[in-house]
Amino acid sequence: MKRHPGDLIRKKREGGEFTGEEIRDLVSGVVDGSFGDAQLGAFLMAVCCRGMTVDETSDLTLAMRDSGTVLDLTEIAGVKVDKHSTGGVGDKVSLLLAPLVAAAGIPVPMISGRGLGHTGGTIDKLQSIPGYRTDLSLNEFRSVLGDCGFVMAAATGEIAPADRRMYAIRDVTGTVESIPLITASILSKKLAEGIDALVMDVKCGRAAFMKTRTDAEALMKSIVSTGKAADKRVTALLTNMDTPLGRAVGNALELREIVDCLRGEGPQDLLEISMELSAEMLVLGEVAKTVPEAREILDRLLSSGEVEACWRRNIERQGGDPHFLDNPNILPMASVQREIVSSSDGFVADIDPLAVGDCAMNLGAGRQQPDDEVDPAVGVVFEVDLGDQVSSGQPLAVIHAASDDDAGRAIAELTDAIKISDESVKPGPLILGRMA
Amino acid sequence: MKRHPGDLIRKKREGGEFTGEEIRDLVSGVVDGSFGDAQLGAFLMAVCCRGMTVDETSDLTLAMRDSGTVLDLTEIAGVKVDKHSTGGVGDKVSLLLAPLVAAAGIPVPMISGRGLGHTGGTIDKLQSIPGYRTDLSLNEFRSVLGDCGFVMAAATGEIAPADRRMYAIRDVTGTVESIPLITASILSKKLAEGIDALVMDVKCGRAAFMKTRTDAEALMKSIVSTGKAADKRVTALLTNMDTPLGRAVGNALELREIVDCLRGEGPQDLLEISMELSAEMLVLGEVAKTVPEAREILDRLLSSGEVEACWRRNIERQGGDPHFLDNPNILPMASVQREIVSSSDGFVADIDPLAVGDCAMNLGAGRQQPDDEVDPAVGVVFEVDLGDQVSSGQPLAVIHAASDDDAGRAIAELTDAIKISDESVKPGPLILGRMA
Repeated sequence: MKRHPGDLIRKKREGGEFTGEEIRDLVSGVVDGSFGDAQLGAFLMAVCCRGMTVDETSDLTLAMRDSGTVLDLTEIAGVKVDKHSTGGVGDKVSLLLAPLVAAAGIPVPMISGRGLGHTGGTIDKLQSIPGYRTDLSLNEFRSVLGDCGFVMAAATGEIAPADRRMYAIRDVTGTVESIPLITASILSKKLAEGIDALVMDVKCGRAAFMKTRTDAEALMKSIVSTGKAADKRVTALLTNMDTPLGRAVGNALELREIVDCLRGEGPQDLLEISMELSAEMLVLGEVAKTVPEAREILDRLLSSGEVEACWRRNIERQGGDPHFLDNPNILPMASVQREIVSSSDGFVADIDPLAVGDCAMNLGAGRQQPDDEVDPAVGVVFEVDLGDQVSSGQPLAVIHAASDDDAGRAIAELTDAIKISDESVKPGPLILGRMA
Repeated sequence: MKRHPGDLIRKKREGGEFTGEEIRDLVSGVVDGSFGDAQLGAFLMAVCCRGMTVDETSDLTLAMRDSGTVLDLTEIAGVKVDKHSTGGVGDKVSLLLAPLVAAAGIPVPMISGRGLGHTGGTIDKLQSIPGYRTDLSLNEFRSVLGDCGFVMAAATGEIAPADRRMYAIRDVTGTVESIPLITASILSKKLAEGIDALVMDVKCGRAAFMKTRTDAEALMKSIVSTGKAADKRVTALLTNMDTPLGRAVGNALELREIVDCLRGEGPQDLLEISMELSAEMLVLGEVAKTVPEAREILDRLLSSGEVEACWRRNIERQGGDPHFLDNPNILPMASVQREIVSSSDGFVADIDPLAVGDCAMNLGAGRQQPDDEVDPAVGVVFEVDLGDQVSSGQPLAVIHAASDDDAGRAIAELTDAIKISDESVKPGPLILGRMA
């Protein structure tokens, strides 16, 4: 890099605004290592404390995108649209949305991360499918997309290496929670996929990365404006993460829930959010003019079996065994299954998603450390939804565990997380806002 | 360390106040390396942006002091007093002050740094004395202090190792300018010397670390309060650094100026600041009740030759050749000496200390990098003081250089730094404030 790292850091510390050239210089120093670890830690903290303008965020995003390979998907016809979620407990939307949107004729190039924390990420969920490969080369990635209409792969070192280093440093330096840094991290990777448009699911609530509506709206705004500055069409939805999404939490258990959805038997909240995000993608992809029109198309594709057929083609193409779509029992199954029952009559007033996430992680469904192995079989499946009337002794959830000890601990952890009240409770809205 | 570094960093990032235990934990992580470089960079930046209370600063100072050896000087009689300066161009006060105060019967245990930047530090100036050793062990340090009444040595790795690591990181991460971090860095080292009281020379002006009076006063206040919180008596003077102090800038050249002072021929500003700081030390050391009373004692000691005798004893005890006190010409002398002359009649209206410092550094008197060698002989000696009336062709300064090229460059650099005006100019006050 041309500039002295200390001078750039000091500029931000004093509240200055970087030029595009300064940001490109900085990112080149991140990639070639001339910006040292201590300097990167200090720089990231200065950004956390002083912020960045939309111009700076967009320059940072583009410089990070350009730090590695940027896929060129122009030879694949159509508007390429992807979705990204800030993540939440039970969020398996991508597994339903990708084949839904692809079935409508929109190419969906999806690069996902492994999960750290509560539960596995999309990649971990996909790896519950026997044989399914997510470690695709960029050439394979392009070719699967062309053949099946969608592709789901793990991030490689070629995509946005600057983000990889910056994220590793943010993770240990208390600098994760910064709107411009989150924006640049998400968008740099998504833009490197070669997309034309993006739907962003910003989750808000107890178990979301953004706890408050103010923070979540700030992130929506930052992502939409930065995406626009990079000439991409971006629509963001603000969605509720005050309870787990769907009824299943755990990798193979979530995959089973997707099979339920394909059969029209999935939980209502999961279906609703998946359909709404997918509909926004159809609008961005110019397959529908409006969201209601898009929803009609999607309903038809789902009930006609075309979505499942699309999924099946992709699974075969990525080396997996699609028979779980016919018989979910071939998916990994935990050896111990134990029920949690209600100790009183009443209404399900609250399911604490953080407790559910921690419980699933402790069972082995998520990672505490990046190198931890994930157990695909374990997790929690709820038997009731928020607001349901229940009677004493009625099963509330089933724990899927690798051992009796694990199951016992999980029951103790979860019992307090499900609140039964005397009065009836009406669940809040799922979709809290929209920005485009 | 017991706490997760990320949690401590996040706490400060969010504006929280650390407990003493948290700070001790953090400093232990700095010393044992469990607080990584990136984390230290982020932490230091969070402190720069969010600040620290007096309690936090004092806890940090004590934890840094206790990260290494803390000298026990109780077996040496008297109130041990040291002086510290934030540094400036031409600041050679320690070399006069230490023998002055010691001659008055106050033990002065002085650990100094090597200079980085404009000119050498006290240690570099001392090393112009043939044979003089500053790399004393802590046992030698104590024993020289007992024998001579003062001792001047370079910092060793045993003193405040936490500061050593933190300073190295601050230096490259744009986190030097922070009142609590500066306070803890200075005081942790000074308190580890085993002192009972400290006089602090906070310089303010163009060539000072603190450019504005507001910043300088904030640092004075922080050092005085933190010193008190550590049960030490601290007096701070605010002194002018808008022009070089004294007439000589360069290591051996400054030592010659000290010899002039011992003979009663030194420049007035240098004498005045040295005497005033020394007098404050006599008051703290309970040798005088008031500063005027202390000044009388010091005047007497200086003119009677007792200060020079004290210096001589110390030089011999630290392995140096004291003959330079009789004949300064045995000190290193530059091969090239060239005059800068006035191009007009008028008054010396300004001498830019930053330009003088840079010029001396470029001649080889200071370091650009920590491992650079310092040339003891080179530098600048002014022939005039601020406010003096001069006529065209009159010598303003003499450049001492290692080569004709160096001298030529220095003349070009310095010519603009000395302003001659038509109107007479009155220099501002030397001492701008006092806090105790």
